[in-house]
Amino acid sequence: MIAAPRGSVVNEPKSTTTKDQINQKLQNTKKHPVHDRQAGESPTPFTADSMPPMTTALDVIAIGNALVDVLAHAQDSFLEQNRISKGSMSLIDATRAEALYETMGPAVEISGGSAANSIAGLASLGGKGAFIGKVSADQLGSIFAHDIRSLGVEFTTRPHRDGAPTGRCLIFVTPDAQRTMQTFLGSAAQVGPDDVDPEQVKRAQVTYLEGYLFDPPEAKRAFVKAAEIAHDAHRKVALTLSDRFCVDRHRAEFQELVHGHIDILFANESEITALYQAGSFDTAVQAVRGKCDLVVLTRSEKGAVVVTPTETVTVPAEPITRLVDTTGAGDQFAAGFLFGYTRGRNPRDCARLGAIAAAEVIQHFGARPEVSLASLIQGRV
Amino acid sequence: MIAAPRGSVVNEPKSTTTKDQINQKLQNTKKHPVHDRQAGESPTPFTADSMPPMTTALDVIAIGNALVDVLAHAQDSFLEQNRISKGSMSLIDATRAEALYETMGPAVEISGGSAANSIAGLASLGGKGAFIGKVSADQLGSIFAHDIRSLGVEFTTRPHRDGAPTGRCLIFVTPDAQRTMQTFLGSAAQVGPDDVDPEQVKRAQVTYLEGYLFDPPEAKRAFVKAAEIAHDAHRKVALTLSDRFCVDRHRAEFQELVHGHIDILFANESEITALYQAGSFDTAVQAVRGKCDLVVLTRSEKGAVVVTPTETVTVPAEPITRLVDTTGAGDQFAAGFLFGYTRGRNPRDCARLGAIAAAEVIQHFGARPEVSLASLIQGRV
Repeated sequence: MIAAPRGSVVNEPKSTTTKDQINQKLQNTKKHPVHDRQAGESPTPFTADSMPPMTTALDVIAIGNALVDVLAHAQDSFLEQNRISKGSMSLIDATRAEALYETMGPAVEISGGSAANSIAGLASLGGKGAFIGKVSADQLGSIFAHDIRSLGVEFTTRPHRDGAPTGRCLIFVTPDAQRTMQTFLGSAAQVGPDDVDPEQVKRAQVTYLEGYLFDPPEAKRAFVKAAEIAHDAHRKVALTLSDRFCVDRHRAEFQELVHGHIDILFANESEITALYQAGSFDTAVQAVRGKCDLVVLTRSEKGAVVVTPTETVTVPAEPITRLVDTTGAGDQFAAGFLFGYTRGRNPRDCARLGAIAAAEVIQHFGARPEVSLASLIQGRV
Repeated sequence: MIAAPRGSVVNEPKSTTTKDQINQKLQNTKKHPVHDRQAGESPTPFTADSMPPMTTALDVIAIGNALVDVLAHAQDSFLEQNRISKGSMSLIDATRAEALYETMGPAVEISGGSAANSIAGLASLGGKGAFIGKVSADQLGSIFAHDIRSLGVEFTTRPHRDGAPTGRCLIFVTPDAQRTMQTFLGSAAQVGPDDVDPEQVKRAQVTYLEGYLFDPPEAKRAFVKAAEIAHDAHRKVALTLSDRFCVDRHRAEFQELVHGHIDILFANESEITALYQAGSFDTAVQAVRGKCDLVVLTRSEKGAVVVTPTETVTVPAEPITRLVDTTGAGDQFAAGFLFGYTRGRNPRDCARLGAIAAAEVIQHFGARPEVSLASLIQGRV
């Protein structure tokens, strides 16, 4: 497929940092006391007129895989023939990406990447975000950079110029609107600690980390560096578990990270049960309670549950008129939640904002909002 | 914008062929007697099961600009600020494309090009098509080639490898769902007579020409060559006028072409009145009647009118539930019409097929069908 060098393989370690060294570094990213804005406090109002002032303050800075989504409709039989597990995300190398692209139907290209989608959603809501991720100096890289910057997001990571093309995520949307992802990371895997600007991280209320970054070793080092800087500056660190298979690949590290270093955790039902190898959702909720200030659990049409050390807040899903493509539902839920959080809203309001943002994105093809989310929430929450 | 060399200018003549030489060649592409399938004849049935057999026969071969669409929502004020005439298509150079892309909102990339969209629609209906157009050997070129081939369309034009990147069309969709296009032709302008394979053209019942090709001189020469081959092989030649400003730029040549060499003409209300500088639609209909076997005039929500030498067939627009983006409406109307035509349907049925295909595409973002048009027409016409 698109200019990807045949035979190159992603995920080759680029440094000699050992897992122990990374874990040692994680030990240093200690959490600070529970966030001082709790449920029930009076919220800061926000309207289209109360956009953050043009200062250098950031609501959220995210680190994630910089990817362009290549979305196509597909039948379940296509997934079966290609031995792809429905609903999952798998990493693939350039050869596999090329072969799979050959067999996939006509596609649409839209900037993606889980955390980047969340930052795009945050910007659409009127928040101020920044993104750290690695594109290549190619056409898809230009598209990614344009799309995120055009939303007012700070995106200053230098493009990669050495071989690997911009990463892409082949997304197959089945007739039930479920999405299945096959990701060729390309240059996204090259994001590293040098791409993390400490001053930029310090400017953000929340540093948001994409769980998928546990796959490329250099990216995980960037992740650890950012978390360290954020906590040292008394900022909050959020994480999304991203995918149940990603959790399976890195369970011990994720548990240690979540229990010791994460203030706000995002996961869906399948991810949180995978984290604790729990037999049920309720068991997983018991296991995670108290491990973070806020644990935000999304359950598709069953809505969302926010677990704090002392309470459990349940919020229903936002009604929709048609389910088209679930790609980006979790990303937009996180966007809405973090937008509310950085404005001092209580967990219920944050989750309602997440539900509204997620409902927008699942009613059309693609993982980023098609309309201004700021206008959608106006007067609603 | 995307890897376009700054300062390069499109549309520089690449050959010394004069307008007279081209017109002389056009004289040789004489029309053959009126198509022998007329209105009222019993139609050939078609269903999903009666797809054309896997022979080398083609229903339609199209020559057009190979472009990737870059679609974004925009306000009317954006068009005014950038002095862009709403609803039109303008050619822009690389510098202007870069500057405009900088200012446009987050976009979606979808393979486009007017005639290529029609061939994609024809394929979606179950027809067998081929496309001639020039992409570059870059990522956007790979996307274009993948998307059209994945539909079963023959696309064998060699990519351009000398500087110009794949062309793109910046499309601004205003809140009224109207689309306004700013096109950087890039390598699309490099399509030339050498790209026309005579044997491939002879295999097609209809050779379909995109009016926009009158802009790049080399492309027009390709166009003339294909028309000549088609008529020599007793095949039909169709033309779409593409755009009223394109008609204004080339009125005399278009009139001569239409009157002497085109069997099936496609135009919208604004284009046909521009062709004859007519004060009203009815005046334009009088002027064009008898000039071609079939003149297919689309009138947006007023439906379509098919003008034959002896009759006028009026077909209403297909009802829709929501108007999202008119990009590609004319392209898909032509797709439906030509699909019916190549299956021996009468003009009314052909126009109804066109209306159904157009209705699908205006209810979502982008100019190509999102669902199987074959399933949409099943049992309808």
